[in-house]
Amino acid sequence: MRAVTIREGGELAVAEHPDPEPGAGEVLVRVRAAGINGADILQRRGAYPAPPGSPPDIPGLELAGEVAALGPGARRFQPGDRVMGIVGGGGQAELAVVHERQLMPVPEALDWPAAGALPEVFTTAHDALFTQSGLRPGERLLVHGAAGGVGTAAVQLGVAAGARVTATVRNEALRGEVAALGAGEVLAPDGFAEHGPFDVILELVGAPNMPANLRALGTGGRIAVIGVGAGFQAEVNLLALMGKRATLRASTLRARPLEEKAATARAMEREVLPLFDAGRVRVPIAESFPLAAVEAAYDRFTAGGKLGKIVLTP
Amino acid sequence: MRAVTIREGGELAVAEHPDPEPGAGEVLVRVRAAGINGADILQRRGAYPAPPGSPPDIPGLELAGEVAALGPGARRFQPGDRVMGIVGGGGQAELAVVHERQLMPVPEALDWPAAGALPEVFTTAHDALFTQSGLRPGERLLVHGAAGGVGTAAVQLGVAAGARVTATVRNEALRGEVAALGAGEVLAPDGFAEHGPFDVILELVGAPNMPANLRALGTGGRIAVIGVGAGFQAEVNLLALMGKRATLRASTLRARPLEEKAATARAMEREVLPLFDAGRVRVPIAESFPLAAVEAAYDRFTAGGKLGKIVLTP
Repeated sequence: MRAVTIREGGELAVAEHPDPEPGAGEVLVRVRAAGINGADILQRRGAYPAPPGSPPDIPGLELAGEVAALGPGARRFQPGDRVMGIVGGGGQAELAVVHERQLMPVPEALDWPAAGALPEVFTTAHDALFTQSGLRPGERLLVHGAAGGVGTAAVQLGVAAGARVTATVRNEALRGEVAALGAGEVLAPDGFAEHGPFDVILELVGAPNMPANLRALGTGGRIAVIGVGAGFQAEVNLLALMGKRATLRASTLRARPLEEKAATARAMEREVLPLFDAGRVRVPIAESFPLAAVEAAYDRFTAGGKLGKIVLTP
Repeated sequence: MRAVTIREGGELAVAEHPDPEPGAGEVLVRVRAAGINGADILQRRGAYPAPPGSPPDIPGLELAGEVAALGPGARRFQPGDRVMGIVGGGGQAELAVVHERQLMPVPEALDWPAAGALPEVFTTAHDALFTQSGLRPGERLLVHGAAGGVGTAAVQLGVAAGARVTATVRNEALRGEVAALGAGEVLAPDGFAEHGPFDVILELVGAPNMPANLRALGTGGRIAVIGVGAGFQAEVNLLALMGKRATLRASTLRARPLEEKAATARAMEREVLPLFDAGRVRVPIAESFPLAAVEAAYDRFTAGGKLGKIVLTP
């Protein structure tokens, strides 16, 4: 099979690899679409090695495709079924093996690019907002970096859950599109603290926001840190945190063991996929690229100034 | 009635005040014992004013005594019943009014000093360890500042819940007494990070511990910040927090509204008071003082070098 391959020094290529074989409980997926995520960029730079059990040189944290074969004991899907899911790596390839408990069925309403761009960002946003932060109807949610992949997912999931959503977006040209996703307020990154108090803050930018996040947080508020591209060494006033009886959580999906990734997939099936069936949320796609154009696809991802995902379609 | 009174400039006196009258749902308590806590010291310095609805000049966050009279509609207790509870202030007096939902019955096994020294520290420790941090049997708990009031409560509650407890104690002379409370490991404050990983860390000292706390924390670990006497401006490495999928919580009891304080009292009745009845936990008392010796009692509290609580017995 052919797969995106990270060479020495971070050069990207499409190279031949042996076809992977599904082990016990695993499914061989013929990949139709695989989104690009920030973790792929870090991995390419050598800053975020793949976890044990994932291909060390093939990036890709999510995929969608058809079931091509079943490993021993796999029984959740049949050959030909449309499936999608998060993986520890190796998604940007023609074939990938995934444990069946990590896979979800693809909602009928979704085409391949949408399905391949959905798992990582919607699972991350759903896990951070609901499983970790317990976001409830009527609460006020602030999403930083709302024009990114996780941001656009979080805004829509917050709105669908009956929360009142405020978004910060650095690129002025994208603010209208974020508002169209349902955010009631779309702000520049400066000065958001005066728009609080917020019950939940989803931090996708990094440490520089933390002092203002603490000011903007309401009593009993929760901050979920999922992205730290702008810096990770944060100053936290513990007395302010005590006074607000607040919670600061941070997380990442990729390093989780099978059972935890499978639990997020079940939560997605119960709580998020019905929203796609009902047309209440969507996957903004900025652009799709064939596998051979991987270099252009990664360049487009890092260039910024886009709303929505960049997808490879092997 | 007579009550400890904070005069201009922080001078302490015992002065006459009008007898308080119980309002709807409230109970008038003839106070037999009232513990001294760190918040009283801060309040005396003018750094921690009493919350609205509490006497501004009478300290005391906890009390035990006999029901002297009932306000309209109060029905949980009868005159003469032994009760105890946390209050927003005003506990260090001969009489105090407390909403009946904030009060708990005093376990038979406890004398007045123990009952008056119990509510604040055991409620704080129980809330932080179980309600907030979800400590579970078999988990490893690290308690910083374990010779203090909340610390001695937390060590015992952790042990009683089947957690494996490590404690840090600055004063070498007190380490044996903390070990006698059930801590499996009692350490000096330096170098604790090498004894991890811990599932739950109870921070009763402050910000200087935070970098080492993050190193000592296990995957999925929780840090509960309850005391910051050594400093409150913390450096937090968000990338480390993400990698460990960790939670940092901070809280305080005094500012909570009636319904939340009442909820902590119900949790105490269900989960902690039976441990006193069974003799599985105890309230270490360093010394009791009559109301008239309040200045000596506060001096003893701030002098340190003791294990257990300082109690006033009006």
